[in-house]
Amino acid sequence: MVIITNPGITEEQLEHIREYVEARGMRTMISRGERQTIVGCIGDDDVLREMALHRLPGVQAVVPIMKPYKLANVQFTARRTEVRVGDAPDQVIGGGDAISVIAGPCSVENRSMLHETAVSVRDAGAIMLRGGAFKPRTSPYSFQGLGLEALEMLAEVRAETGLPIVTEVMDTRQVEVVAEHADMLQVGARNMQNFALLAEVGRVQRPVLLKRGLSATIEELLMAAEYIMVNGGRDVVLCERGMRTFETATRNTLDIAAIPVLKRETHLPVIVDPSHAGGLADLVAPLAFAAIAAGADGLIVEVHPTPESALSDGDQSLTLDAFSDLMQRLVPFAEAAGRTLAVPSV
Amino acid sequence: MVIITNPGITEEQLEHIREYVEARGMRTMISRGERQTIVGCIGDDDVLREMALHRLPGVQAVVPIMKPYKLANVQFTARRTEVRVGDAPDQVIGGGDAISVIAGPCSVENRSMLHETAVSVRDAGAIMLRGGAFKPRTSPYSFQGLGLEALEMLAEVRAETGLPIVTEVMDTRQVEVVAEHADMLQVGARNMQNFALLAEVGRVQRPVLLKRGLSATIEELLMAAEYIMVNGGRDVVLCERGMRTFETATRNTLDIAAIPVLKRETHLPVIVDPSHAGGLADLVAPLAFAAIAAGADGLIVEVHPTPESALSDGDQSLTLDAFSDLMQRLVPFAEAAGRTLAVPSV
Amino acid sequence: MVIITNPGITEEQLEHIREYVEARGMRTMISRGERQTIVGCIGDDDVLREMALHRLPGVQAVVPIMKPYKLANVQFTARRTEVRVGDAPDQVIGGGDAISVIAGPCSVENRSMLHETAVSVRDAGAIMLRGGAFKPRTSPYSFQGLGLEALEMLAEVRAETGLPIVTEVMDTRQVEVVAEHADMLQVGARNMQNFALLAEVGRVQRPVLLKRGLSATIEELLMAAEYIMVNGGRDVVLCERGMRTFETATRNTLDIAAIPVLKRETHLPVIVDPSHAGGLADLVAPLAFAAIAAGADGLIVEVHPTPESALSDGDQSLTLDAFSDLMQRLVPFAEAAGRTLAVPSV
Amino acid sequence: MVIITNPGITEEQLEHIREYVEARGMRTMISRGERQTIVGCIGDDDVLREMALHRLPGVQAVVPIMKPYKLANVQFTARRTEVRVGDAPDQVIGGGDAISVIAGPCSVENRSMLHETAVSVRDAGAIMLRGGAFKPRTSPYSFQGLGLEALEMLAEVRAETGLPIVTEVMDTRQVEVVAEHADMLQVGARNMQNFALLAEVGRVQRPVLLKRGLSATIEELLMAAEYIMVNGGRDVVLCERGMRTFETATRNTLDIAAIPVLKRETHLPVIVDPSHAGGLADLVAPLAFAAIAAGADGLIVEVHPTPESALSDGDQSLTLDAFSDLMQRLVPFAEAAGRTLAVPSV
Repeated sequence: MVIITNPGITEEQLEHIREYVEARGMRTMISRGERQTIVGCIGDDDVLREMALHRLPGVQAVVPIMKPYKLANVQFTARRTEVRVGDAPDQVIGGGDAISVIAGPCSVENRSMLHETAVSVRDAGAIMLRGGAFKPRTSPYSFQGLGLEALEMLAEVRAETGLPIVTEVMDTRQVEVVAEHADMLQVGARNMQNFALLAEVGRVQRPVLLKRGLSATIEELLMAAEYIMVNGGRDVVLCERGMRTFETATRNTLDIAAIPVLKRETHLPVIVDPSHAGGLADLVAPLAFAAIAAGADGLIVEVHPTPESALSDGDQSLTLDAFSDLMQRLVPFAEAAGRTLAVPSV
Repeated sequence: MVIITNPGITEEQLEHIREYVEARGMRTMISRGERQTIVGCIGDDDVLREMALHRLPGVQAVVPIMKPYKLANVQFTARRTEVRVGDAPDQVIGGGDAISVIAGPCSVENRSMLHETAVSVRDAGAIMLRGGAFKPRTSPYSFQGLGLEALEMLAEVRAETGLPIVTEVMDTRQVEVVAEHADMLQVGARNMQNFALLAEVGRVQRPVLLKRGLSATIEELLMAAEYIMVNGGRDVVLCERGMRTFETATRNTLDIAAIPVLKRETHLPVIVDPSHAGGLADLVAPLAFAAIAAGADGLIVEVHPTPESALSDGDQSLTLDAFSDLMQRLVPFAEAAGRTLAVPSV
Repeated sequence: MVIITNPGITEEQLEHIREYVEARGMRTMISRGERQTIVGCIGDDDVLREMALHRLPGVQAVVPIMKPYKLANVQFTARRTEVRVGDAPDQVIGGGDAISVIAGPCSVENRSMLHETAVSVRDAGAIMLRGGAFKPRTSPYSFQGLGLEALEMLAEVRAETGLPIVTEVMDTRQVEVVAEHADMLQVGARNMQNFALLAEVGRVQRPVLLKRGLSATIEELLMAAEYIMVNGGRDVVLCERGMRTFETATRNTLDIAAIPVLKRETHLPVIVDPSHAGGLADLVAPLAFAAIAAGADGLIVEVHPTPESALSDGDQSLTLDAFSDLMQRLVPFAEAAGRTLAVPSV
Repeated sequence: MVIITNPGITEEQLEHIREYVEARGMRTMISRGERQTIVGCIGDDDVLREMALHRLPGVQAVVPIMKPYKLANVQFTARRTEVRVGDAPDQVIGGGDAISVIAGPCSVENRSMLHETAVSVRDAGAIMLRGGAFKPRTSPYSFQGLGLEALEMLAEVRAETGLPIVTEVMDTRQVEVVAEHADMLQVGARNMQNFALLAEVGRVQRPVLLKRGLSATIEELLMAAEYIMVNGGRDVVLCERGMRTFETATRNTLDIAAIPVLKRETHLPVIVDPSHAGGLADLVAPLAFAAIAAGADGLIVEVHPTPESALSDGDQSLTLDAFSDLMQRLVPFAEAAGRTLAVPSV
């Protein structure tokens, strides 16, 4: 932590700052300039982060030095985390060169559409099935998902297709039941700072797909992962899915630079959701290509047999054929990025 | 709902759109222009909102007409909601001309600081005590609140001072216990779209203080209120507390225009949190004055006996004296706004 | 400037940083922590601001200390700037307790509407007339203003009413002619970082009304003022007019906290444009009240005899009567803020 | 244009709206719903765009239908624009499959560094040289560019290397002299809505590189291009260079989705500036790869022989070797995107 003082700070004020900081177990080093003096605070930043340093007379600004994330920090670990989501060799995310694609419907609508979608995306090369059982919807009058019934359909389809399952959990009370049915728990963008949920999801020690909040900074995303990890969850997959900006031409603004920044900061896998980022089916392919080019470890894509009649997110869902086509077109981008993407030839 | 079509739309595409819409129980009216044709969809917007209209060939844009909020909509009610939070005549928020001020520490740190603060803010004119028991903190390494112990302290201090209590609830599993101890449940900015929590908070039918999310639109705030109301909660107080923008000179950007916009759209009371909006004690007074001038029904202000040593939010907390002074200075602004603010003379 | 180094920095890297900084005429002070080392750089921040410190191996982050604005900095002057815009005693902005209101049409549309508006706003208490001659319009197909003809109308109406004139200048080649006709030159939000224009406007040494850019930070606004001042213009009035955010309920988001922040940072007067901030006539009054409550030195308000038929910005313009009413209602807010606003009684 | 009316609109208000619109030469079609009525306005949207429709009693919202850009609109032209910047066959941007890369220093600092950079980027495959003569700097105390002297160096280096030149113009008075020396005029992000400059740049009928403003929407970018085109400039290259958001981990947020959206909306070439978008040299490669993957027609990259000592933007400049390496690594991404990028083998 560095404290930058006001130009006219008095010696007494400076001494008060020094005492305040040292009383909290840190050492100080004071550098006096002609016009401004800075106080370096050496020790555990977490302690000072709590404190009302701005209240001390003579303080102009406070600059943290140490990154607040530790378990998620790439500097504190020997290697990149590989998250295993199923038993098959390719059912992993991160840790190596593979590009892992998750696909499936926004919501589980019924047994047959889920099964049809699962078979199709598996045959196209997806390694995992997504499908919403509990849906976070802006309006209470919108379709809220089939709940437990959908969880059971997901488990059945997993048994039939061999695809592991990821589905969203929205309530601490649901964590256990979702963990019984799913291979990976998704924490949605709107719950990225639902700290009670993060802690609970960490406790069940299942892989977690953590989506970045609409207006969360990269550091806040990493701190959300840290909440999960501190509570016991080690296998966190981070997902960039677009942020909220002034631009209205797209549903959200995909922060493509978040991928290399995250890869520099953390050992956790980073995937991208091009469906929510753009909000339109036509944008899924270019955003998916860009994500792989920028270094993402995978994708999560919404797919629906008949998007026109989808109960949610139909605008951005790919048809089964369009997804299959996307997977074929992804291959050369994966190769250009020095990655592998195993897609069955058509 | 209005569907704007592409300039080159064919008759078949237009007919497909018409059938699609009418199959969902709505009527259509087609207006043909020289270059563009629009399809008016008459009926329940909620039905169409679900649908993937962008997927229909020939559709350029879709414009909802009806406001998605109904219970919160000012047009659907005869009068403005008054939220009663205690038994004393002035322990209400909204519904009339009174300016209601809630004050107290960010976190409940111990029994004596809470009591001291409560007595002081009550004597300065606050009608309600705030105090965090469960704290949403960006870092899992930060002070997380005293939890149940804090709830009990709050209840004791209420008994002693007569001040009703508002405290944040972060987990569906806590709703019941918080409702047993508090007079009003706060849903924090980070949980504004924690829909499970909104529903649960609605079910206990207690007054709710609903804070606007950092990047939530005004419409999304009203839809969050709608979630609470649909589930049985009628007494929702909306709180503008600053949004996230590119500006870094302040912690958040107080959206002062949200006050008159909300007063135009909803019958629910609207208050402002100048402490979180600015993030610095020096900004609390000017933002509080501005809030009252813009038409707010009240304020929620962080107050601490010794902000320098506060365990959270010390930078933005007022001292007891500063709060007392603020209350005195608020009076002429309340009067200028045609409102009443009863503050004991010093 | 403080340089924060990487945890694993080597002695050689540290030495290289030291040499690099000292070769540019600054002193360094190195504070070594257990995990991280910081290098304080003492001397002129402006020199280092230019440099590619991030390129030096071992550098993690660079934190400027000194404020980059000097002439606009409140710390470098003995008193607040009063900008005189006309000869009458009340024709000043800033420097004291008076609230100064500028009013007039968005565009000068013709001689009679301008004269009618001027007489009416003067009689309501405005101290200055605004009116656009050269209009910055998003579309080249929109009305672009009457140009030179409008400047002449403005000068005539000034002669008739005694109201000084402010009008926008958009092109360095127009600065001279606008300065011949107007008492204050306006630099619009879209030109806030048109540095050639800022310099030219500074050179003619006329009062300048500088509007904050849609996505300009407060620091960037002050640096834009600095450009004018370095080039000779001393009388700069800063104008907060709303920033661009994700919220679509209003045209822009008025950054009400910018007022106290600017008053803390600079000696220049600060006024607010509630018309552009909200974009709707109904929002002008609450935003104007809030601006005065938050400490603004004045307002600039769009007024039109018949907004329905205005050639630009009709949605947000007040009628003559509505402006007159606004002025009456502003008085108690000005008084509550300890300011004076002389409005003729009706 | 579609006008959405208030639920309780009267027949008189509706009639007033109808008359108002028809008096401006448009036809109306009224669709009455149970709760809301809409008025379709058929004719030239540009006329209505000017009008204060929100002022008419009974109007709730106004929705434009037609895109306001015409010359830039992909629907109004038979083929994509190819912008020729030099005489050699590959010295074009857009119109076909080629990926065109522009490279060079942020500022022209002296003759030898410019020449060295030009030779190196040409040999690496760049088709055009960039170099700032007039620099838009946030601070008046920063290096402002060598001006005319730099223009002459650029022209000389063009003669020596055969590389056409692009350089920024910031002032209407400089347009002519810049056009004499450069092959393409750059309008910078801060001047994207400097309408006088756009018009002047259009008049000289030179190719223009138009950078998107920090907070400009895609539609506003296209309207800025429209300004240039209406004034005679046909060869406009659009450049996405990152927008301003709340995220501070990167200098700006590259709006990668803007590429496919622009390609859908306009026939003009679209390139990306990964240097300014990320603000750090390490981010240039991943953002460049992503840009090509998303469909960009080219890149503009900052390159400097010794970034550590650059007078501006050293943090984000690539070394000559790093640029050469980038070009090699771009090839497979270009191929994956079905594009061609001719890079000399090393």
